[in-house]
Amino acid sequence: MNQTQSFIQSNRDRFLEELLDLLRIPSISADKAYSEHVHKTADVIADKLKRIGIETVEICQTAGYPIVYGEKIVDPALPTVLVYGHYDVQPADPLELWTSPPFEPVIKKTDIHPEGAIFARGACDDKGQMYMHVKAVEAMIASNELPCNVKFMIEGEEEVGSPNLAIFVKENVEKLKADIILVSDTGMLANDVPSITTGLRGLSYVEVEVTGPNRDLHSGLYGGCVANPINILTQMIASLHDENNRITIPGFYDKVVELSDEERAEMAKAPFSLEKYCKALDIREVHGEKGYSTPERGSIRPTLDVNGIWGGYTGEGAKTVIASKAFAKISMRLVPDQNPDEITALFKTHFESIAPASVRVAVHPHHGGEASVTPIDSIGYKAASLAYEQTFGKKPIPVRSGGSIPIVAMFEKVLGLKTIMMGFGLDSDAIHSPNEHYGVFNYFKGIETIPYFYKHFTELNK
Amino acid sequence: MNQTQSFIQSNRDRFLEELLDLLRIPSISADKAYSEHVHKTADVIADKLKRIGIETVEICQTAGYPIVYGEKIVDPALPTVLVYGHYDVQPADPLELWTSPPFEPVIKKTDIHPEGAIFARGACDDKGQMYMHVKAVEAMIASNELPCNVKFMIEGEEEVGSPNLAIFVKENVEKLKADIILVSDTGMLANDVPSITTGLRGLSYVEVEVTGPNRDLHSGLYGGCVANPINILTQMIASLHDENNRITIPGFYDKVVELSDEERAEMAKAPFSLEKYCKALDIREVHGEKGYSTPERGSIRPTLDVNGIWGGYTGEGAKTVIASKAFAKISMRLVPDQNPDEITALFKTHFESIAPASVRVAVHPHHGGEASVTPIDSIGYKAASLAYEQTFGKKPIPVRSGGSIPIVAMFEKVLGLKTIMMGFGLDSDAIHSPNEHYGVFNYFKGIETIPYFYKHFTELNK
Repeated sequence: MNQTQSFIQSNRDRFLEELLDLLRIPSISADKAYSEHVHKTADVIADKLKRIGIETVEICQTAGYPIVYGEKIVDPALPTVLVYGHYDVQPADPLELWTSPPFEPVIKKTDIHPEGAIFARGACDDKGQMYMHVKAVEAMIASNELPCNVKFMIEGEEEVGSPNLAIFVKENVEKLKADIILVSDTGMLANDVPSITTGLRGLSYVEVEVTGPNRDLHSGLYGGCVANPINILTQMIASLHDENNRITIPGFYDKVVELSDEERAEMAKAPFSLEKYCKALDIREVHGEKGYSTPERGSIRPTLDVNGIWGGYTGEGAKTVIASKAFAKISMRLVPDQNPDEITALFKTHFESIAPASVRVAVHPHHGGEASVTPIDSIGYKAASLAYEQTFGKKPIPVRSGGSIPIVAMFEKVLGLKTIMMGFGLDSDAIHSPNEHYGVFNYFKGIETIPYFYKHFTELNK
Repeated sequence: MNQTQSFIQSNRDRFLEELLDLLRIPSISADKAYSEHVHKTADVIADKLKRIGIETVEICQTAGYPIVYGEKIVDPALPTVLVYGHYDVQPADPLELWTSPPFEPVIKKTDIHPEGAIFARGACDDKGQMYMHVKAVEAMIASNELPCNVKFMIEGEEEVGSPNLAIFVKENVEKLKADIILVSDTGMLANDVPSITTGLRGLSYVEVEVTGPNRDLHSGLYGGCVANPINILTQMIASLHDENNRITIPGFYDKVVELSDEERAEMAKAPFSLEKYCKALDIREVHGEKGYSTPERGSIRPTLDVNGIWGGYTGEGAKTVIASKAFAKISMRLVPDQNPDEITALFKTHFESIAPASVRVAVHPHHGGEASVTPIDSIGYKAASLAYEQTFGKKPIPVRSGGSIPIVAMFEKVLGLKTIMMGFGLDSDAIHSPNEHYGVFNYFKGIETIPYFYKHFTELNK
């Protein structure tokens, strides 16, 4: 891969500029107002794939945003790597907290990124990380060093739960035939502590609506007389955790796989400083399920968080109103072997059951996904580990992450393929938050590391 | 008052048109964007007072919106009625629930208002009710039947807690010298069940802010590890009521005046149908403090309601975020002898004390006001009662209302004057809600009844 690495070094400026251009398109999939931009991004990705030498490129229409597919078959007898990524991004609000506009990428130095980091929505999640693969493959093709076949499947609905990806995958099992799936949509422990994500949490996401009186009421005339939907909603949500911060939904923990003491001891070896953690977030204390450490709470334990709540008067000043309705968006992170559909059903049944007769409650499921685990003795993991060792000079640590890429479980079910999560982001990159950024170091380290994965994966498969 | 009544009858169309014009100005005091309109409304009121023959009219500047003052002194030896009202209105949102635009008044018939009702923000609260006084005084002056002196004090900040009125009143004790204060900013039981408000609840209004991590976080990476400010806020709010729906703030009930069994029995005589009440609001059950009836809960008992709550992602679709902050607006309705400053202080201390160490909490007091009671054996009450008897053909029922006009207690303290609350609105008028309206019957019944109050009040004072 020497030619490939030289090619990367001599094209650094262009590789960076291309990413910045991609980040300028506000491809927010959750908000229909940005539809045109999401579509445009798909076109740009397809064009990029063509330009680097991917022979077959298609923009595959779905009921939602299209999936960009591409493939280059070097030799059908060789292994095939299927790259998955997404070109859509999270909404950027609250906009006022961004120090520079979310879709005008700029490179700024930070303590963690002395070489500079690219500040923009999607810089890390996932345009930056997805585009590393495009550039790594470009470098291998241009250097005549692509050792195996490669397929790309880049979607535009990951941030809204990939509602159409499973349909596409099921309808294209033959086309997507491969030996391994490669994804960069996770993080690593630190720039000098490389790690590979071997586990992901699942997700169940619901929106709840509590309705009291049929119209907003004057809180003086009706206060104390009727159920206030906001007060009731707070009581219902509060009751979802007990005093040990365990979730109270009956049956919620029934299928949770408990780790052995040995496994927990192994996990505890990963470097973690509670003091630094609190300092970075400016909190005095952490908060979570009794009996588990913070890294455990964030990876091997299921959670329930309110992601949004609203109701009544939220403008300037004071309004003495009892709202007719109150709403919340609630997500639950799941662990093996919790089934998201089952958990959503348990939530709905429980939430409806705890509603007092003075209100009506509706639970609308948004989307879900199963948890997944990648074995560290697999060829895919070993190839990735060797690749990191080559570029970082040290072995990566296998880590179970708290995030969810629900489609990883779906890939395994439908395609029978394991996914290797070579994430180069950092927890501090503020993905899904204002001021999302991605280290320039990380971007290029990814581009440099990926070709070695192709090399080792091909060799280990011989 | 025969000439006066004839004058009213022959000017009905004009009186109605003038109110509609007034309702077209969006004088929302809570939102600075409407500042120009609030000021314009003050100018219009001042102009109207001049046109009806009020001799001295001033637009008195304050630190906020101006107070329109006017007086007509018939004879210093005669009693003086001081009319208070407000020309500002509540915000109109949620706009999408209005069946016609809030500032384009239209007259529509309803079951309760077969003669039609004026649909517009401020129709009842308080432009419609305030303007009845302007028109009633016009009729008396035009008919040469004004039996005593009259002063007007119409403010533009009632809906934001009258922050500058007390200052104005304190600085103008001599100017505001009067024998009684007359206010129409309340309601009556029904169009065929006239009533006079003899008690008002006080108010304490706060905004709370819960801060967790220093930035929005990805709920996958941090979910379960850090305190989610929204979850914590729901727990804190939920804990403010116990299982009997009593407020748990220590000391909250200490000064509450408990009514005797006799007083409660007297109250229970007012017509009230729980079935109709629930049906009108489309609720299956009422909800409130154990041991009290619905009318009691809404008048003689203090309450705590969330008037607004917000935090995290509230847009379309799903966003897996842990918000850095969560907010709520909370108001407490108070009864004699609860002191709003004391209650606000008790709330603040308690709310801060129940915050877990994993978050920071800020409590910002908005405004408050004391509860008040008007004795039914006073000359003012008797004059009002006689006036209603004359126009409705039956004695009005004295009623303690759940609403708050905090300034009524302030008037008593600073000016030593009792306030008579001749309200002509109905509970169903949807004040502070979408589709606020005011019966055409009620508007004119008010204009017709007010002159008789002047007559009887002057006579009873002889």
